[in-house]
Amino acid sequence: MTVTRDDVLQAARRIQGRVRRTPALQVSPTVTFKLELLQHVGSFKPRGAFNRLLGAKEQGLLTGQGVIAASGGNAGLAAAYASRELGVPARIFVPVNAPAPKVARLRTLDADVVQVGNEYAEAYEAAVMAAEESGALLVHAFDQPEIVAGQGTIGLELLDQVDGFDTVLVAVGGGGLIAGIATALGDSARVVGVEPELAPTLHRTLAAGELVDVQVGGLAADSLGARRLGTLAFEAAKSYDLRSVLVPEEAIVAARNELWHEYHLAVEHGAAVTYAALRTGAYQLSDGERVVVVVCGANTDPSTLS
Amino acid sequence: MTVTRDDVLQAARRIQGRVRRTPALQVSPTVTFKLELLQHVGSFKPRGAFNRLLGAKEQGLLTGQGVIAASGGNAGLAAAYASRELGVPARIFVPVNAPAPKVARLRTLDADVVQVGNEYAEAYEAAVMAAEESGALLVHAFDQPEIVAGQGTIGLELLDQVDGFDTVLVAVGGGGLIAGIATALGDSARVVGVEPELAPTLHRTLAAGELVDVQVGGLAADSLGARRLGTLAFEAAKSYDLRSVLVPEEAIVAARNELWHEYHLAVEHGAAVTYAALRTGAYQLSDGERVVVVVCGANTDPSTLS
Repeated sequence: MTVTRDDVLQAARRIQGRVRRTPALQVSPTVTFKLELLQHVGSFKPRGAFNRLLGAKEQGLLTGQGVIAASGGNAGLAAAYASRELGVPARIFVPVNAPAPKVARLRTLDADVVQVGNEYAEAYEAAVMAAEESGALLVHAFDQPEIVAGQGTIGLELLDQVDGFDTVLVAVGGGGLIAGIATALGDSARVVGVEPELAPTLHRTLAAGELVDVQVGGLAADSLGARRLGTLAFEAAKSYDLRSVLVPEEAIVAARNELWHEYHLAVEHGAAVTYAALRTGAYQLSDGERVVVVVCGANTDPSTLS
Repeated sequence: MTVTRDDVLQAARRIQGRVRRTPALQVSPTVTFKLELLQHVGSFKPRGAFNRLLGAKEQGLLTGQGVIAASGGNAGLAAAYASRELGVPARIFVPVNAPAPKVARLRTLDADVVQVGNEYAEAYEAAVMAAEESGALLVHAFDQPEIVAGQGTIGLELLDQVDGFDTVLVAVGGGGLIAGIATALGDSARVVGVEPELAPTLHRTLAAGELVDVQVGGLAADSLGARRLGTLAFEAAKSYDLRSVLVPEEAIVAARNELWHEYHLAVEHGAAVTYAALRTGAYQLSDGERVVVVVCGANTDPSTLS
């Protein structure tokens, strides 16, 4: 199972008009931000969700049973949003201890929120079972070809929006975003993953040379806390020679504050890791290297910025 | 004294590389946001400030005495920022009761903050006198040709960024921004001013047919609270047949909240008036009318958004 550039091109055609073409902002002669935090429901995830739903619809697999996903975070919001836009019901599985504001937000998107299990893995198992029983379409947070291809449309937009770039910095949780962007860009640019030191899923996977479970935590775990890289991301990592650089917690906090105070962007911690890598030199630019910093999520409590 | 489109073109050449070319975000088939809130120091004001300073520099009028401005708000921040970037000192006059955070922020930009008088008018008089005595360059908040021409560069960017538009909605305080944009656009688009009901400076001026003092207040008075329209804005209003629509306080609050929750933009109240006019129908779109909503300021306490 592999995702090709043609899959990304197909995704772009499918989701056109459903997602925002988010702007690029040049902030220095060599640095451009891709403002994907301005996407619907505040993250890049609707790109993949729409591609998954619309792809299934083309095959007659999007029925009145609708959609099932397991995530109290950005992937759940995106699945709920895409379902509502396409007029099908969404059931979103979250652990019983999911924060009330997240559950409430899913409900404002008309999702049926099912609280089950004490942790994400149990909610996910219940979701898979419910999808199999009901015939509803399971939407994974990162490890399905249509999801990866959908996220990759960001890469196509960059080729169109940014006048020459060498490197793209991308936050990595389960790896759907980086896999998609790397597939879209191919040899056009170097794609570098950035992860919190406390959630080094791609980093450890590359070190081990195989998919491994990784302990995750820290401030960005709500968005980058996948314990195991996706199989598709692992394939992409090998095909496109992806690397991962790590940033400490305090660099994430400082980058997030600077994104607010200097650039007026309110971002979640997971979305600040890429700018943190640039700011701290965790990713070292060579002379004249032109870099795109993907800023990919705004789901944050803005009162923590002041 | 009038400002021409050539002045705006000259401003664009002068300030290029000093200000951010802020992105446009299409949010529906007919509505585009101009994200000027992402400008340096969080508002459009650096465009005019750089044009004023660089124009003076060309004429040998920017001396070691530097720059003087009277404003504890966006205009003061912009004057301080542009001065620091160009390596000249800035003295910013504010009333003695100016809020401490605003004074502190000006000082982080290396400005010398002079607190004098009980209200803005007194601080302004002191600034004018100090500029005359010292030979420092006075930078007005809105009513100087270079300031108007600088703000107008937003109009030029729109012509380049947005693929066809009929109307531009612009917030009005002293009118520097709307005068500049109208001058840049000429017959290319209709430019409509938006003001709070509680700060209807352009509205009352148009009704009176002459420049009049207007009582101002309300949530957006910190950015749109000029009591008298600028003479250049009045000229532009006549030349370009500008109108003003008014929005009530609660519509400003609702628009600001929606800009955060739906678009992930943290804006100040004064910058939410244009979206409020669209949302409430204070400005009525005709069928198929393509509108640009200028979102022009981010200087807000984000904790008031959650």
